[in-house]
Amino acid sequence: MEVINKLVTLKAHMDGSPQESDFVIKTETLSLSAVLESKDVLVKNIYVSIDPYQINRMKSLCSSQTASGSSYAAGIAPGQAIDTHGVGRVVVSGNPDFKKDDLVVGRIGWGEYSIVKEGANLDKLNPLGFPYSYHVGILGVSGFTAYAGFYEICQPKKGERVFVSAAAGSVGNIVGQYAKLFGCYVVGCAGSQEKVDLLKNKLGFDDAFNYKEETDLKAAVAKYFPDGEMLEAAVANMNQFGRVAVCGVIAEYTEKGKRAAPDMIDIVYKRITIRGFLAGDYMSQFPEFISATSDHLKTGRMHSIEDISQGLESIPSAFAGLFRGDNVGKKIVQIADE
Amino acid sequence: MEVINKLVTLKAHMDGSPQESDFVIKTETLSLSAVLESKDVLVKNIYVSIDPYQINRMKSLCSSQTASGSSYAAGIAPGQAIDTHGVGRVVVSGNPDFKKDDLVVGRIGWGEYSIVKEGANLDKLNPLGFPYSYHVGILGVSGFTAYAGFYEICQPKKGERVFVSAAAGSVGNIVGQYAKLFGCYVVGCAGSQEKVDLLKNKLGFDDAFNYKEETDLKAAVAKYFPDGEMLEAAVANMNQFGRVAVCGVIAEYTEKGKRAAPDMIDIVYKRITIRGFLAGDYMSQFPEFISATSDHLKTGRMHSIEDISQGLESIPSAFAGLFRGDNVGKKIVQIADE
Repeated sequence: MEVINKLVTLKAHMDGSPQESDFVIKTETLSLSAVLESKDVLVKNIYVSIDPYQINRMKSLCSSQTASGSSYAAGIAPGQAIDTHGVGRVVVSGNPDFKKDDLVVGRIGWGEYSIVKEGANLDKLNPLGFPYSYHVGILGVSGFTAYAGFYEICQPKKGERVFVSAAAGSVGNIVGQYAKLFGCYVVGCAGSQEKVDLLKNKLGFDDAFNYKEETDLKAAVAKYFPDGEMLEAAVANMNQFGRVAVCGVIAEYTEKGKRAAPDMIDIVYKRITIRGFLAGDYMSQFPEFISATSDHLKTGRMHSIEDISQGLESIPSAFAGLFRGDNVGKKIVQIADE
Repeated sequence: MEVINKLVTLKAHMDGSPQESDFVIKTETLSLSAVLESKDVLVKNIYVSIDPYQINRMKSLCSSQTASGSSYAAGIAPGQAIDTHGVGRVVVSGNPDFKKDDLVVGRIGWGEYSIVKEGANLDKLNPLGFPYSYHVGILGVSGFTAYAGFYEICQPKKGERVFVSAAAGSVGNIVGQYAKLFGCYVVGCAGSQEKVDLLKNKLGFDDAFNYKEETDLKAAVAKYFPDGEMLEAAVANMNQFGRVAVCGVIAEYTEKGKRAAPDMIDIVYKRITIRGFLAGDYMSQFPEFISATSDHLKTGRMHSIEDISQGLESIPSAFAGLFRGDNVGKKIVQIADE
């Protein structure tokens, strides 16, 4: 028995902003009997995550590759399958831990099917009564990154002022929601009026502004940031002992040599901490995160903001759109019916 | 009774690198009876500290001024006395805590005499058998900054690799010594061969290089840093979970717009922490610092590296020299005999 798999692959290494034409859809034949004879699991992919960090893996000089052993950093060669976080269903399994029709979450790929090796990140999924897509976003890596960054890295105190950049993005919108529930004053910036409205009206941000509208920006920054790039402006306006949690820097992924240069004199005198992190380092807190966040979602205190496109073929434009700010909230592609 | 005081003052606000001609020596008359009638202490200054951070207070737009309530950040106006850390002897005191001839350490000034107000930072000094100048440097703010930055901010582990920039400077040389004693592998950079020799031969650094000698630099950076400015290069070459403690940024004090721009992608993937600090926040650990450091000094495991000029008149060139890298170790001016 065989299945024909369609998967998205890179035409060549990425340089600059991604275009739809940088990708090609490839067809391959997968043997079910080969899977059954191995410890592999063949997964039919349902929802896959579309994330900006993937571009760092697509560059020819993959700087992140040497920096970390995690799958979030390994380089992606042209023609190769592109792994990502997602939800799917087991078709056949040579691994005794999984059986046909199991709902699973973990490291699948931008394709109709994925073969997941033994030992790779794959778990049975209890959807907890939520749409499966939640487990790609707010109850998945994006939500957990927001959770670890806000609670672990920033160690917030009630009443503190929190600024969230890319606040309508997959992680930012959740950081803002946690911060509001925790009792902070929360200001976000985003790239469109629609996003600003979402932050203020639906997600309860105390304030938000559109950094692309210069007139609004001037008014907004008079209040929060006098000038400059977001990180620089945030540091310039931070209070003493301020903390910056950095889980990604989308603006620097596609522009070579573009670098945030926060004022180190501010950093010293205001005793500011800038700290990079990967959510994976805090896995011991994942159960607590799931429990708290599902509770917030069930009682309506939190909202899942998802932007779902349909079909494998929409992956290249979904990905390229991240860098144009097309997405509102978590970008997900639905590849198959639930 | 009166004393004639000579003190160093600013001619005008500072802009760019400091020159000797930016300062003027002013004479004033101080009334001893006025001191006795107040709660003030009149101190004859013996050793005063010469530190790069003072330039931030001398600029017209004193950004540090608003950032922190400490005396390390308050602006200095032209004509005004310039306060600094130092050691002196009480001449007369209206404050019952001090009496004539008490040896004192604290916030005195760049002058022959200082009037220290009640409540200001001044303590009786037990020299513990060390030259008084040690209490301006290795047993004073410089040493304590090194101590807090290394132990508190960096939370070192034995065997870790430590890079010290400005390693022959007042704080850097002590950080390197602590790190060696703690069991780290220590590499320093400095601006002359003399300084590099000091680091390697006297202070026991595992390695050191002269960042001004391009040929040496290339060889050295091939080992430690492939390119760029120190902080950027350090971040680029850091291991996972690396920590950067920032107590000052001398290269940015005099060049407007000069900013370190470490790669935020590295910061995320390698989970790097960059943290500014002021030693004053860790005062509860000052006694422990003094006890450990004096013990190391007595047994010869640590060395005090001082660069002492003579006479009040040498203050302007001592200060300007900091920005040319003239000093080796802690820059101190001796104003009067012990």
